[in-house]
Amino acid sequence: MRDRRQGRKASAGSRRSPRAGRHRAPHAADGPAILYGWHTVTAALANPARRIRRLWTTENAARRLVEDGIALPARHELVRPDVIAARLGPDALHQGLLVEADPLASPEIEDVENGLVLVLDQITDPHNVGAILRTAAAFGAGAVVTTARHSPEATGVLAKSASGALEYVPIVTVQNLARGLTALKERGFLLVGLDSTGESDLAAANVRAPLALVLGAEGKGLRQLTRATCDVVARLNLPGAIKSLNVSNAAALALYVATTRLGTDS
Amino acid sequence: MRDRRQGRKASAGSRRSPRAGRHRAPHAADGPAILYGWHTVTAALANPARRIRRLWTTENAARRLVEDGIALPARHELVRPDVIAARLGPDALHQGLLVEADPLASPEIEDVENGLVLVLDQITDPHNVGAILRTAAAFGAGAVVTTARHSPEATGVLAKSASGALEYVPIVTVQNLARGLTALKERGFLLVGLDSTGESDLAAANVRAPLALVLGAEGKGLRQLTRATCDVVARLNLPGAIKSLNVSNAAALALYVATTRLGTDS
Repeated sequence: MRDRRQGRKASAGSRRSPRAGRHRAPHAADGPAILYGWHTVTAALANPARRIRRLWTTENAARRLVEDGIALPARHELVRPDVIAARLGPDALHQGLLVEADPLASPEIEDVENGLVLVLDQITDPHNVGAILRTAAAFGAGAVVTTARHSPEATGVLAKSASGALEYVPIVTVQNLARGLTALKERGFLLVGLDSTGESDLAAANVRAPLALVLGAEGKGLRQLTRATCDVVARLNLPGAIKSLNVSNAAALALYVATTRLGTDS
Repeated sequence: MRDRRQGRKASAGSRRSPRAGRHRAPHAADGPAILYGWHTVTAALANPARRIRRLWTTENAARRLVEDGIALPARHELVRPDVIAARLGPDALHQGLLVEADPLASPEIEDVENGLVLVLDQITDPHNVGAILRTAAAFGAGAVVTTARHSPEATGVLAKSASGALEYVPIVTVQNLARGLTALKERGFLLVGLDSTGESDLAAANVRAPLALVLGAEGKGLRQLTRATCDVVARLNLPGAIKSLNVSNAAALALYVATTRLGTDS
């Protein structure tokens, strides 16, 4: 689908801003977030909470930024496309833009406010996690919860696949997913795990806000303790010969079905 | 989501079989299809229309095949995992199985029978096209129509991402997409293009079978002539800050919305 962004709006799922709540600041030892590609970089430049260390841009991309009224950060460098390509590898669609930035602070799970969140149980593929973040932003999800281990970093391929969504949807990183889920439950969230063996059809399940949709990795699915911590394990009814989807496609369907049922789809 | 397949059933979108209709046979010059990974290879081995040239398998994978009652093809070779990895590269999740097979014959567009098809307008990323095929199989789509040029081959990464769907959903390759769309229209198909600038919401649009959902590449969207040939251009309503999705996620939502409205979702 053609890519069009709406104007910024101050609704749930809109631009992240520093909040009074507790945040886990990025460790001093954290490496920079490497952001490239038009949507990923322009969203980062427009986010006041994102500290840009340095921008590398081609002349063409710089001209396009200026045309779009986007200010270049103080520390920027005009380079040829091959300088950026040499840094990222031949397959990266950088579109003439590369940024080194500080990672964004990760909110605490107790500070998640929005009525719909996604929880990812050790989904490791950065393309999939990036696409999930992008779709989460498209559906106005309030956060994506991941585990500190067995999750890709919010940089590089993940950031490119997220297409700017890193700046819209906070990633909440927890050490222990079952404890994270319990914290959500204590705050009133209904925990719905997604699994093709689920006892109920998500489209017919009783869902209500606040709602957490919990997705497992392809092949492995939800871990036993994750599954046991969920209030409901639901499936997506698929009429065809194959009964499982790419995990980002499953996340998109789950978000669509849930937002339609919650009445937050417009 | 955990991966589970249902038993084979002879419904729309079920296993491809040689038909009386016209087919474009693979050219003698076509290279073999390279298929790897558990689902991709076992689906190929179970498809009578798929001619297997040779199977390379690890001892563990061979044992698992036998346990699952899957016959090894006459020409197979027991190898160590690193022999397969050396052929595919370090990132390929081959799960101990690699097959060289003939490409499947491509049906003519005039032979597409099923009431729901997807049309891809120059979507080039093999991960995305593979995920789209997988989701098309999950929704019982009758075919995926692609252009001969600017489309990835049905092999390698695409086949792995499709997770066996190549054996269930025929790929119809056309030289000229507008002519292909016109051929569908003449056969009674309603052509619905998907674009975030579409005039109507797909969930509220008048759709009926037979239906073709037409998707463009990310960034570029539908080409002008493709768009002009569609009966309707519809959008997916997205309530959040980002208004475009990864194209395979958009395809999944479009298939879900369409099958729900057509009443073919169960």
